[in-house]
Amino acid sequence: MEPTQRIEQALEAAIVSAQGPGCPPGFAQALRYSVFPGGARIRPRLCLAVAWACGNSDPETTDAAAAAIELLHCASLVHDDLPCFDDSTLRRGRPSVHCAYGERLAVLAGDALIVLAFEIVARRIIAAPANVSRVMATIARCTGAPVGICAGQAWECESEVVLEDYHRAKTGSLFVAATVAGAESVGAPTESWRLVGERLGEAYQVADDLGDAMASSREMGKPLGRDSSLGRPNAVQELGIEGAVRRLKDLVASATDAVPACPGAPALQALIAAESRRILPEELARLAA
Amino acid sequence: MEPTQRIEQALEAAIVSAQGPGCPPGFAQALRYSVFPGGARIRPRLCLAVAWACGNSDPETTDAAAAAIELLHCASLVHDDLPCFDDSTLRRGRPSVHCAYGERLAVLAGDALIVLAFEIVARRIIAAPANVSRVMATIARCTGAPVGICAGQAWECESEVVLEDYHRAKTGSLFVAATVAGAESVGAPTESWRLVGERLGEAYQVADDLGDAMASSREMGKPLGRDSSLGRPNAVQELGIEGAVRRLKDLVASATDAVPACPGAPALQALIAAESRRILPEELARLAA
Repeated sequence: MEPTQRIEQALEAAIVSAQGPGCPPGFAQALRYSVFPGGARIRPRLCLAVAWACGNSDPETTDAAAAAIELLHCASLVHDDLPCFDDSTLRRGRPSVHCAYGERLAVLAGDALIVLAFEIVARRIIAAPANVSRVMATIARCTGAPVGICAGQAWECESEVVLEDYHRAKTGSLFVAATVAGAESVGAPTESWRLVGERLGEAYQVADDLGDAMASSREMGKPLGRDSSLGRPNAVQELGIEGAVRRLKDLVASATDAVPACPGAPALQALIAAESRRILPEELARLAA
Repeated sequence: MEPTQRIEQALEAAIVSAQGPGCPPGFAQALRYSVFPGGARIRPRLCLAVAWACGNSDPETTDAAAAAIELLHCASLVHDDLPCFDDSTLRRGRPSVHCAYGERLAVLAGDALIVLAFEIVARRIIAAPANVSRVMATIARCTGAPVGICAGQAWECESEVVLEDYHRAKTGSLFVAATVAGAESVGAPTESWRLVGERLGEAYQVADDLGDAMASSREMGKPLGRDSSLGRPNAVQELGIEGAVRRLKDLVASATDAVPACPGAPALQALIAAESRRILPEELARLAA
Protein backbone atom coordinates (compact mmCIF):
# COMPACT_ATOMS: atom_id res chain seq x y z
CA MET A 1 0.00 0.00 0.00
CA GLU A 2 1.20 3.52 -0.80
CA PRO A 3 2.35 5.56 2.23
CA THR A 4 -0.35 8.20 1.70
CA GLN A 5 -3.03 5.53 1.60
CA ARG A 6 -1.66 3.85 4.75
CA ILE A 7 -1.74 7.16 6.59
CA GLU A 8 -5.26 8.13 5.53
CA GLN A 9 -6.49 4.65 6.37
CA ALA A 10 -4.95 4.70 9.85
CA LEU A 11 -6.37 8.18 10.51
CA GLU A 12 -9.78 7.14 9.20
CA ALA A 13 -9.86 4.08 11.49
CA ALA A 14 -8.87 6.25 14.46
CA ILE A 15 -11.56 8.85 13.79
CA VAL A 16 -14.21 6.19 13.21
CA SER A 17 -13.42 4.67 16.60
CA ALA A 18 -13.66 8.11 18.23
CA GLN A 19 -17.05 8.67 16.59
CA GLY A 20 -18.43 5.40 17.98
CA PRO A 21 -21.80 4.80 19.66
CA GLY A 22 -22.68 7.37 22.30
CA CYS A 23 -20.71 10.22 20.75
CA PRO A 24 -22.51 13.59 20.69
CA PRO A 25 -23.25 14.21 16.96
CA GLY A 26 -21.72 17.70 16.76
CA PHE A 27 -18.60 16.52 18.53
CA ALA A 28 -18.27 13.58 16.12
CA GLN A 29 -18.40 16.02 13.19
CA ALA A 30 -15.89 18.40 14.76
CA LEU A 31 -13.44 15.54 15.32
CA ARG A 32 -13.58 14.50 11.66
CA TYR A 33 -13.41 18.13 10.48
CA SER A 34 -10.23 18.61 12.57
CA VAL A 35 -8.41 15.80 10.73
CA PHE A 36 -9.93 15.61 7.21
CA PRO A 37 -9.12 16.72 4.60
CA GLY A 38 -5.52 16.92 5.71
CA GLY A 39 -2.62 19.12 4.75
CA ALA A 40 0.60 17.67 3.40
CA ARG A 41 0.74 14.98 6.14
CA ILE A 42 4.50 15.50 6.06
CA ARG A 43 5.11 14.26 9.61
CA PRO A 44 3.45 10.85 9.20
CA ARG A 45 5.02 10.49 5.74
CA LEU A 46 8.43 11.08 7.30
CA CYS A 47 7.65 8.56 10.02
CA LEU A 48 6.74 5.90 7.47
CA ALA A 49 9.75 6.70 5.28
CA VAL A 50 12.14 6.31 8.22
CA ALA A 51 10.53 3.03 9.31
CA TRP A 52 10.80 1.83 5.70
CA ALA A 53 14.46 2.79 5.60
CA CYS A 54 14.92 0.80 8.83
CA GLY A 55 13.37 -2.38 7.43
CA ASN A 56 9.61 -1.82 7.83
CA SER A 57 9.36 -4.86 10.08
CA ASP A 58 6.20 -3.80 11.97
CA PRO A 59 3.98 -1.69 9.70
CA GLU A 60 1.06 -1.75 12.15
CA THR A 61 3.08 -0.15 14.93
CA THR A 62 4.59 2.33 12.47
CA ASP A 63 1.13 3.26 11.15
CA ALA A 64 -0.08 3.79 14.73
CA ALA A 65 2.88 6.04 15.52
CA ALA A 66 2.49 7.99 12.27
CA ALA A 67 -1.25 8.50 12.74
CA ALA A 68 -0.73 9.49 16.39
CA ILE A 69 1.78 12.16 15.40
CA GLU A 70 -0.61 13.54 12.77
CA LEU A 71 -3.51 13.56 15.28
CA LEU A 72 -1.33 15.50 17.73
CA HIS A 73 -0.37 17.93 14.96
CA CYS A 74 -4.07 18.41 14.10
CA ALA A 75 -4.89 18.94 17.80
CA SER A 76 -2.20 21.61 18.05
CA LEU A 77 -3.59 23.41 14.98
CA VAL A 78 -7.12 23.39 16.40
CA HIS A 79 -5.96 24.84 19.72
CA ASP A 80 -3.49 27.29 18.09
CA ASP A 81 -6.32 28.74 15.99
CA LEU A 82 -8.44 29.53 19.10
CA PRO A 83 -9.30 33.17 19.83
CA CYS A 84 -6.93 33.29 22.81
CA PHE A 85 -3.97 32.24 20.60
CA ASP A 86 -3.79 33.12 16.90
CA ASP A 87 -7.51 33.85 16.55
CA SER A 88 -7.43 32.38 13.05
CA THR A 89 -10.73 32.19 11.25
CA LEU A 90 -9.31 30.17 8.37
CA ARG A 91 -7.29 26.97 8.18
CA ARG A 92 -6.46 25.19 4.93
CA GLY A 93 -8.81 27.49 3.04
CA ARG A 94 -11.96 26.92 5.10
CA PRO A 95 -13.29 28.01 8.50
CA SER A 96 -11.12 26.94 11.41
CA VAL A 97 -12.68 24.41 13.80
CA HIS A 98 -13.83 26.98 16.36
CA CYS A 99 -15.41 29.07 13.61
CA ALA A 100 -17.22 26.07 12.19
CA TYR A 101 -18.22 24.36 15.46
CA GLY A 102 -17.74 26.90 18.23
CA GLU A 103 -14.96 27.43 20.69
CA ARG A 104 -16.13 24.77 23.16
CA LEU A 105 -16.12 21.93 20.64
CA ALA A 106 -12.76 23.13 19.33
CA VAL A 107 -11.21 22.89 22.81
CA LEU A 108 -12.79 19.46 23.34
CA ALA A 109 -11.85 18.16 19.89
CA GLY A 110 -8.21 19.07 20.53
CA ASP A 111 -8.34 17.32 23.90
CA ALA A 112 -9.95 14.19 22.48
CA LEU A 113 -7.46 14.02 19.60
CA ILE A 114 -4.60 14.02 22.13
CA VAL A 115 -6.24 11.14 23.98
CA LEU A 116 -6.92 9.32 20.70
CA ALA A 117 -3.27 9.61 19.66
CA PHE A 118 -2.10 7.76 22.75
CA GLU A 119 -5.00 5.31 22.55
CA ILE A 120 -4.09 4.08 19.07
CA VAL A 121 -0.43 3.60 19.97
CA ALA A 122 -1.44 1.79 23.18
CA ARG A 123 -3.32 -0.77 21.07
CA ARG A 124 0.09 -2.05 19.92
CA ILE A 125 1.51 -2.62 23.43
CA ILE A 126 0.89 -6.37 23.54
CA ALA A 127 2.28 -6.93 20.04
CA ALA A 128 5.49 -4.93 20.57
CA PRO A 129 5.91 -3.75 24.17
CA ALA A 130 9.54 -2.62 23.95
CA ASN A 131 9.13 -0.61 20.76
CA VAL A 132 5.79 0.87 21.80
CA SER A 133 7.24 1.90 25.15
CA ARG A 134 9.92 3.93 23.35
CA VAL A 135 7.48 5.34 20.77
CA MET A 136 5.14 6.52 23.50
CA ALA A 137 7.90 8.16 25.52
CA THR A 138 9.08 9.96 22.37
CA ILE A 139 5.63 11.15 21.35
CA ALA A 140 4.84 12.34 24.88
CA ARG A 141 8.14 14.17 25.21
CA CYS A 142 7.68 15.90 21.85
CA THR A 143 4.12 16.95 22.67
CA GLY A 144 3.78 17.97 26.32
CA ALA A 145 5.95 19.68 28.94
CA PRO A 146 8.80 20.54 29.42
CA VAL A 147 9.97 20.61 25.77
CA GLY A 148 7.13 19.49 23.47
CA ILE A 149 4.79 21.54 21.30
CA CYS A 150 2.68 22.63 24.31
CA ALA A 151 5.83 24.07 25.88
CA GLY A 152 6.75 25.68 22.54
CA GLN A 153 3.40 27.43 22.39
CA ALA A 154 3.76 28.42 26.06
CA TRP A 155 6.95 30.34 25.26
CA GLU A 156 4.67 32.83 23.48
CA CYS A 157 3.28 33.74 26.90
CA GLU A 158 6.68 34.62 28.39
CA SER A 159 8.11 38.12 28.49
CA GLU A 160 11.61 36.77 27.89
CA VAL A 161 11.86 34.05 25.28
CA VAL A 162 14.68 31.57 24.89
CA LEU A 163 14.37 31.63 21.12
CA GLU A 164 16.17 28.36 20.46
CA ASP A 165 14.02 26.51 23.02
CA TYR A 166 10.92 28.14 21.53
CA HIS A 167 11.58 27.05 17.95
CA ARG A 168 12.87 23.61 18.89
CA ALA A 169 9.80 22.91 21.00
CA LYS A 170 7.14 24.53 18.83
CA THR A 171 8.14 23.43 15.33
CA GLY A 172 11.03 21.03 15.68
CA SER A 173 9.64 18.63 18.22
CA LEU A 174 7.02 16.92 16.05
CA PHE A 175 9.55 16.45 13.24
CA VAL A 176 11.88 14.79 15.73
CA ALA A 177 8.92 12.69 16.92
CA ALA A 178 8.25 11.66 13.32
CA THR A 179 11.76 10.49 12.50
CA VAL A 180 12.66 9.05 15.92
CA ALA A 181 9.33 7.24 16.45
CA GLY A 182 9.58 5.90 12.90
CA ALA A 183 12.85 4.20 13.83
CA GLU A 184 11.62 3.15 17.28
CA SER A 185 8.45 1.59 15.86
CA VAL A 186 10.65 -1.05 14.19
CA GLY A 187 13.24 -1.28 16.96
CA ALA A 188 16.00 0.57 15.09
CA PRO A 189 18.62 2.91 16.61
CA THR A 190 17.53 6.55 16.55
CA GLU A 191 20.62 8.75 16.82
CA SER A 192 21.04 9.81 13.18
CA TRP A 193 17.26 9.99 12.66
CA ARG A 194 17.00 12.52 15.47
CA LEU A 195 19.41 14.76 13.56
CA VAL A 196 17.34 14.43 10.37
CA GLY A 197 14.21 15.45 12.32
CA GLU A 198 15.94 18.40 13.99
CA ARG A 199 17.27 19.79 10.71
CA LEU A 200 13.93 19.40 8.97
CA GLY A 201 12.16 21.05 11.88
CA GLU A 202 14.50 24.02 11.62
CA ALA A 203 13.97 24.16 7.85
CA TYR A 204 10.19 24.34 8.37
CA GLN A 205 10.65 27.13 10.89
CA VAL A 206 12.65 29.15 8.37
CA ALA A 207 10.05 28.36 5.67
CA ASP A 208 7.33 29.61 8.05
CA ASP A 209 9.22 32.84 8.65
CA LEU A 210 9.65 33.29 4.90
CA GLY A 211 5.95 32.59 4.34
CA ASP A 212 4.98 35.19 6.98
CA ALA A 213 7.28 37.76 5.43
CA MET A 214 5.90 37.11 1.94
CA ALA A 215 2.32 37.29 3.21
CA SER A 216 2.81 40.56 5.07
CA SER A 217 4.57 41.96 2.02
CA ARG A 218 1.64 41.06 -0.21
CA GLU A 219 -1.10 42.00 2.21
CA MET A 220 0.27 45.15 3.74
CA GLY A 221 2.51 46.45 0.99
CA LYS A 222 5.46 46.33 3.34
CA PRO A 223 8.93 45.55 2.06
CA LEU A 224 9.90 41.91 2.49
CA GLY A 225 11.67 40.97 5.67
CA ARG A 226 11.53 44.31 7.44
CA ASP A 227 9.61 43.09 10.42
CA SER A 228 7.75 40.19 11.83
CA SER A 229 4.10 40.58 12.66
CA LEU A 230 4.53 39.21 16.19
CA GLY A 231 7.55 41.36 16.99
CA ARG A 232 9.76 38.35 17.62
CA PRO A 233 13.12 37.91 15.92
CA ASN A 234 13.00 35.35 13.16
CA ALA A 235 15.18 34.02 10.35
CA VAL A 236 14.06 36.67 7.84
CA GLN A 237 14.65 39.47 10.30
CA GLU A 238 18.03 38.06 11.17
CA LEU A 239 19.30 37.07 7.71
CA GLY A 240 17.13 38.90 5.20
CA ILE A 241 15.11 37.08 2.55
CA GLU A 242 18.07 35.81 0.52
CA GLY A 243 19.96 34.78 3.63
CA ALA A 244 16.94 32.93 4.98
CA VAL A 245 16.43 31.10 1.68
CA ARG A 246 20.09 30.08 1.74
CA ARG A 247 19.74 28.93 5.34
CA LEU A 248 16.71 26.84 4.44
CA LYS A 249 18.58 25.17 1.61
CA ASP A 250 21.54 24.47 3.90
CA LEU A 251 19.25 22.88 6.48
CA VAL A 252 17.59 20.67 3.87
CA ALA A 253 21.01 19.62 2.55
CA SER A 254 22.15 18.89 6.08
CA ALA A 255 19.02 16.79 6.77
CA THR A 256 19.63 14.88 3.55
CA ASP A 257 23.27 14.26 4.49
CA ALA A 258 22.24 13.02 7.93
CA VAL A 259 20.23 10.14 6.46
CA PRO A 260 22.33 7.08 7.24
CA ALA A 261 23.33 4.68 4.48
CA CYS A 262 20.54 2.11 4.17
CA PRO A 263 18.35 0.54 1.47
CA GLY A 264 15.57 3.11 2.02
CA ALA A 265 17.88 6.15 1.97
CA PRO A 266 17.24 7.23 -1.66
CA ALA A 267 13.45 7.21 -1.19
CA LEU A 268 13.74 9.23 2.00
CA GLN A 269 16.09 11.72 0.38
CA ALA A 270 13.67 12.08 -2.53
CA LEU A 271 10.85 12.81 -0.06
CA ILE A 272 12.96 15.50 1.63
CA ALA A 273 13.82 17.05 -1.74
CA ALA A 274 10.16 17.12 -2.81
CA GLU A 275 9.14 18.67 0.50
CA SER A 276 11.80 21.36 0.27
CA ARG A 277 10.40 22.33 -3.15
CA ARG A 278 6.89 22.41 -1.72
CA ILE A 279 7.72 24.65 1.25
CA LEU A 280 9.94 27.06 -0.66
CA PRO A 281 7.89 29.18 -3.13
CA GLU A 282 9.43 29.26 -6.59
CA GLU A 283 9.66 33.04 -6.54
CA LEU A 284 12.00 32.66 -3.56
CA ALA A 285 13.92 29.60 -4.70
CA ARG A 286 15.22 31.62 -7.64
CA LEU A 287 16.58 34.28 -5.26
CA ALA A 288 19.29 32.06 -3.87
CA ALA A 289 19.78 29.74 -6.84
CA MET B 1 2.97 4.19 52.83
CA GLU B 2 -0.47 5.73 53.33
CA PRO B 3 -2.63 5.98 50.16
CA THR B 4 -2.79 9.78 50.35
CA GLN B 5 0.98 9.99 50.59
CA ARG B 6 1.43 7.58 47.68
CA ILE B 7 -0.89 9.66 45.52
CA GLU B 8 0.71 13.01 46.34
CA GLN B 9 4.15 11.54 45.79
CA ALA B 10 3.21 10.11 42.38
CA LEU B 11 1.64 13.42 41.35
CA GLU B 12 4.64 15.37 42.61
CA ALA B 13 7.05 13.18 40.63
CA ALA B 14 4.91 13.61 37.50
CA ILE B 15 4.76 17.40 37.80
CA VAL B 16 8.48 17.64 38.53
CA SER B 17 9.23 15.72 35.33
CA ALA B 18 6.91 18.05 33.37
CA GLN B 19 8.70 21.08 34.83
CA GLY B 20 12.11 19.80 33.69
CA PRO B 21 14.90 21.73 31.94
CA GLY B 22 13.71 23.86 29.02
CA CYS B 23 10.19 24.44 30.39
CA PRO B 24 8.91 28.03 30.07
CA PRO B 25 8.79 29.32 33.68
CA GLY B 26 5.19 30.55 33.64
CA PHE B 27 4.03 27.29 32.11
CA ALA B 28 5.87 25.30 34.78
CA GLN B 29 4.05 27.29 37.47
CA ALA B 30 0.66 26.89 35.78
CA LEU B 31 1.16 23.11 35.60
CA ARG B 32 1.85 22.86 39.32
CA TYR B 33 -0.98 25.25 40.16
CA SER B 34 -3.39 23.04 38.19
CA VAL B 35 -2.62 20.00 40.34
CA PHE B 36 -1.61 21.31 43.80
CA PRO B 37 -3.05 21.70 46.33
CA GLY B 38 -5.58 19.07 45.36
CA GLY B 39 -9.19 18.47 46.22
CA ALA B 40 -10.36 15.24 47.83
CA ARG B 41 -8.35 13.10 45.36
CA ILE B 42 -11.25 10.67 45.54
CA ARG B 43 -10.62 9.07 42.13
CA PRO B 44 -6.99 8.05 42.80
CA ARG B 45 -7.94 6.97 46.34
CA LEU B 46 -10.61 4.70 44.87
CA CYS B 47 -8.10 3.35 42.37
CA LEU B 48 -5.62 2.48 45.12
CA ALA B 49 -8.32 0.99 47.34
CA VAL B 50 -9.53 -1.30 44.55
CA ALA B 51 -5.98 -2.42 43.71
CA TRP B 52 -5.43 -3.06 47.41
CA ALA B 53 -8.60 -5.12 47.58
CA CYS B 54 -7.30 -7.09 44.58
CA GLY B 55 -3.97 -7.94 46.20
CA ASN B 56 -1.84 -4.82 45.60
CA SER B 57 0.67 -6.89 43.63
CA ASP B 58 2.09 -4.01 41.53
CA PRO B 59 1.92 -0.74 43.49
CA GLU B 60 4.03 1.15 40.94
CA THR B 61 1.60 0.47 38.11
CA THR B 62 -1.34 1.23 40.39
CA ASP B 63 0.24 4.52 41.46
CA ALA B 64 0.81 5.46 37.81
CA ALA B 65 -2.81 4.68 36.93
CA ALA B 66 -4.12 6.58 39.97
CA ALA B 67 -1.97 9.64 39.30
CA ALA B 68 -2.90 9.59 35.60
CA ILE B 69 -6.60 9.60 36.44
CA GLU B 70 -6.13 12.52 38.83
CA LEU B 71 -4.08 14.45 36.21
CA LEU B 72 -6.88 13.91 33.70
CA HIS B 73 -9.42 15.08 36.26
CA CYS B 74 -7.33 18.21 36.93
CA ALA B 75 -7.02 18.84 33.16
CA SER B 76 -10.78 18.61 32.79
CA LEU B 77 -11.31 21.12 35.62
CA VAL B 78 -8.85 23.59 34.05
CA HIS B 79 -10.59 23.39 30.67
CA ASP B 80 -14.12 23.36 32.17
CA ASP B 81 -13.36 26.61 34.01
CA LEU B 82 -12.39 28.41 30.75
CA PRO B 83 -14.46 31.41 29.67
CA CYS B 84 -16.04 29.46 26.78
CA PHE B 85 -17.35 26.79 29.19
CA ASP B 86 -18.26 27.58 32.80
CA ASP B 87 -16.30 30.86 32.93
CA SER B 88 -15.41 30.13 36.56
CA THR B 89 -13.13 32.61 38.23
CA LEU B 90 -12.71 30.46 41.33
CA ARG B 91 -11.71 26.86 41.91
CA ARG B 92 -11.09 25.35 45.34
CA GLY B 93 -11.29 28.81 46.90
CA ARG B 94 -8.66 30.55 44.79
CA PRO B 95 -8.43 31.97 41.25
CA SER B 96 -8.99 29.38 38.53
CA VAL B 97 -5.98 28.62 36.32
CA HIS B 98 -6.99 30.97 33.49
CA CYS B 99 -7.58 33.78 35.98
CA ALA B 100 -4.19 33.22 37.60
CA TYR B 101 -2.13 32.51 34.45
CA GLY B 102 -4.22 33.61 31.48
CA GLU B 103 -6.39 31.68 29.09
CA ARG B 104 -3.55 30.54 26.83
CA LEU B 105 -1.55 28.87 29.60
CA ALA B 106 -4.75 27.32 30.93
CA VAL B 107 -5.47 25.69 27.56
CA LEU B 108 -1.87 24.51 27.28
CA ALA B 109 -1.68 23.27 30.88
CA GLY B 110 -4.77 21.13 30.30
CA ASP B 111 -3.25 19.74 27.09
CA ALA B 112 0.08 18.98 28.73
CA LEU B 113 -1.59 17.28 31.72
CA ILE B 114 -3.41 14.94 29.32
CA VAL B 115 -0.09 14.06 27.68
CA LEU B 116 1.57 13.65 31.08
CA ALA B 117 -1.13 11.24 32.24
CA PHE B 118 -0.42 8.86 29.38
CA GLU B 119 3.31 9.38 29.69
CA ILE B 120 3.48 8.21 33.30
CA VAL B 121 1.41 5.10 32.60
CA ALA B 122 3.56 4.35 29.54
CA ARG B 123 6.63 4.23 31.80
CA ARG B 124 5.23 0.95 33.19
CA ILE B 125 4.84 -0.80 29.81
CA ILE B 126 8.03 -2.85 30.04
CA ALA B 127 7.38 -3.93 33.62
CA ALA B 128 3.76 -5.00 33.05
CA PRO B 129 2.75 -4.86 29.37
CA ALA B 130 -0.53 -6.79 29.63
CA ASN B 131 -1.88 -4.85 32.61
CA VAL B 132 -0.67 -1.47 31.29
CA SER B 133 -2.29 -2.17 27.93
CA ARG B 134 -5.65 -2.63 29.64
CA VAL B 135 -5.17 0.35 31.97
CA MET B 136 -4.36 2.63 29.04
CA ALA B 137 -7.34 1.49 27.00
CA THR B 138 -9.60 2.11 30.01
CA ILE B 139 -8.19 5.53 30.78
CA ALA B 140 -8.40 6.60 27.12
CA ARG B 141 -11.96 5.35 26.76
CA CYS B 142 -13.07 7.16 29.93
CA THR B 143 -11.41 10.42 28.87
CA GLY B 144 -11.78 11.02 25.13
CA ALA B 145 -14.39 10.31 22.47
CA PRO B 146 -16.93 8.74 22.02
CA VAL B 147 -17.92 8.26 25.68
CA GLY B 148 -15.27 9.81 27.97
CA ILE B 149 -15.31 13.11 29.84
CA CYS B 150 -14.57 15.12 26.65
CA ALA B 151 -17.69 13.61 25.10
CA GLY B 152 -19.62 14.31 28.29
CA GLN B 153 -18.67 17.97 28.16
CA ALA B 154 -19.50 18.03 24.43
CA TRP B 155 -23.11 17.03 25.18
CA GLU B 156 -23.46 20.53 26.64
CA CYS B 157 -23.06 21.87 23.09
CA GLU B 158 -25.95 19.81 21.67
CA SER B 159 -29.49 21.09 21.31
CA GLU B 160 -30.86 17.65 22.16
CA VAL B 161 -29.12 15.89 25.02
CA VAL B 162 -29.20 12.18 25.75
CA LEU B 163 -29.19 12.79 29.48
CA GLU B 164 -28.01 9.36 30.51
CA ASP B 165 -25.10 9.47 28.04
CA TYR B 166 -24.27 12.97 29.25
CA HIS B 167 -24.08 12.08 32.93
CA ARG B 168 -22.38 8.76 32.39
CA ALA B 169 -19.69 10.36 30.22
CA LYS B 170 -19.19 13.60 32.12
CA THR B 171 -19.19 12.44 35.74
CA GLY B 172 -19.36 8.67 35.73
CA SER B 173 -16.53 7.86 33.35
CA LEU B 174 -13.60 8.85 35.57
CA PHE B 175 -15.07 6.93 38.51
CA VAL B 176 -15.32 3.87 36.29
CA ALA B 177 -11.74 4.54 35.18
CA ALA B 178 -10.66 4.67 38.83
CA THR B 179 -12.19 1.39 39.90
CA VAL B 180 -11.59 -0.56 36.66
CA ALA B 181 -8.00 0.64 36.16
CA GLY B 182 -7.33 -0.10 39.84
CA ALA B 183 -8.22 -3.75 39.21
CA GLU B 184 -6.48 -3.86 35.82
CA SER B 185 -3.26 -2.44 37.24
CA VAL B 186 -2.87 -5.65 39.23
CA GLY B 187 -4.31 -7.98 36.61
CA ALA B 188 -7.61 -8.62 38.41
CA PRO B 189 -11.04 -9.12 36.79
CA THR B 190 -12.98 -5.88 36.46
CA GLU B 191 -16.67 -6.72 36.14
CA SER B 192 -17.89 -5.99 39.67
CA TRP B 193 -15.53 -3.03 40.02
CA ARG B 194 -17.10 -1.40 36.98
CA LEU B 195 -20.45 -1.51 38.78
CA VAL B 196 -18.93 0.09 41.89
CA GLY B 197 -17.51 2.90 39.73
CA GLU B 198 -20.78 3.44 37.86
CA ARG B 199 -22.84 3.67 41.06
CA LEU B 200 -20.37 6.06 42.70
CA GLY B 201 -20.28 8.20 39.55
CA GLU B 202 -24.07 8.48 39.66
CA ALA B 203 -23.95 9.29 43.38
CA TYR B 204 -21.52 12.15 42.68
CA GLN B 205 -23.79 13.45 39.93
CA VAL B 206 -26.73 13.56 42.36
CA ALA B 207 -24.49 15.18 45.00
CA ASP B 208 -23.50 17.81 42.41
CA ASP B 209 -27.12 18.53 41.60
CA LEU B 210 -27.87 18.86 45.32
CA GLY B 211 -24.88 21.17 45.77
CA ASP B 212 -26.03 23.38 42.88
CA ALA B 213 -29.54 23.57 44.29
CA MET B 214 -28.23 24.46 47.76
CA ALA B 215 -25.88 27.10 46.33
CA SER B 216 -28.54 28.76 44.21
CA SER B 217 -30.87 28.70 47.20
CA ARG B 218 -28.28 30.44 49.39
CA GLU B 219 -27.04 32.86 46.77
CA MET B 220 -30.23 33.84 45.05
CA GLY B 221 -32.79 33.33 47.77
CA LYS B 222 -34.63 30.87 45.56
CA PRO B 223 -36.43 27.91 47.05
CA LEU B 224 -34.44 24.69 46.98
CA GLY B 225 -34.84 22.46 43.99
CA ARG B 226 -37.14 24.67 41.93
CA ASP B 227 -34.87 24.96 38.95
CA SER B 228 -31.40 24.25 37.70
CA SER B 229 -29.18 27.10 36.64
CA LEU B 230 -28.36 25.51 33.28
CA GLY B 231 -31.95 24.68 32.43
CA ARG B 232 -31.22 20.97 32.20
CA PRO B 233 -33.21 18.38 34.09
CA ASN B 234 -31.33 17.02 37.07
CA ALA B 235 -31.94 14.79 40.05
CA VAL B 236 -33.21 17.60 42.27
CA GLN B 237 -35.60 18.84 39.60
CA GLU B 238 -36.81 15.32 39.01
CA LEU B 239 -37.05 14.04 42.57
CA GLY B 240 -37.02 17.10 44.83
CA ILE B 241 -34.44 17.57 47.55
CA GLU B 242 -35.57 14.75 49.79
CA GLY B 243 -35.97 12.38 46.88
CA ALA B 244 -32.52 13.24 45.58
CA VAL B 245 -30.96 12.69 49.01
CA ARG B 246 -32.68 9.32 49.20
CA ARG B 247 -31.46 8.47 45.69
CA LEU B 248 -27.91 9.38 46.64
CA LYS B 249 -28.05 7.15 49.70
CA ASP B 250 -29.43 4.29 47.61
CA LEU B 251 -26.62 4.67 45.09
CA VAL B 252 -23.97 4.66 47.80
CA ALA B 253 -25.55 1.57 49.37
CA SER B 254 -25.63 -0.10 45.98
CA ALA B 255 -21.95 0.75 45.35
CA THR B 256 -21.08 -0.67 48.74
CA ASP B 257 -23.05 -3.87 48.03
CA ALA B 258 -21.29 -4.26 44.66
CA VAL B 259 -17.87 -4.56 46.33
CA PRO B 260 -16.99 -8.24 45.91
CA ALA B 261 -15.99 -10.31 48.94
CA CYS B 262 -12.24 -9.93 49.35
CA PRO B 263 -9.72 -9.12 52.10
CA GLY B 264 -9.72 -5.39 51.19
CA ALA B 265 -13.51 -5.07 51.05
CA PRO B 266 -14.02 -3.54 54.54
CA ALA B 267 -11.43 -0.79 53.90
CA LEU B 268 -13.00 0.04 50.56
CA GLN B 269 -16.49 0.11 52.05
CA ALA B 270 -15.24 2.41 54.80
CA LEU B 271 -13.79 4.75 52.14
CA ILE B 272 -17.11 4.83 50.31
CA ALA B 273 -18.98 5.54 53.56
CA ALA B 274 -16.61 8.39 54.47
CA GLU B 275 -16.95 9.87 51.00
CA SER B 276 -20.71 9.73 51.10
CA ARG B 277 -20.64 11.70 54.34
CA ARG B 278 -18.27 14.21 52.75
CA ILE B 279 -20.36 14.83 49.66
CA LEU B 280 -23.72 15.00 51.43
CA PRO B 281 -23.99 18.14 53.59
CA GLU B 282 -25.22 17.37 57.09
CA GLU B 283 -28.15 19.74 56.72
CA LEU B 284 -29.34 17.48 53.88
CA ALA B 285 -28.40 14.12 55.36
CA ARG B 286 -30.91 14.76 58.16
CA LEU B 287 -33.71 15.31 55.63
CA ALA B 288 -33.80 11.70 54.54
CA ALA B 289 -32.53 10.11 57.73
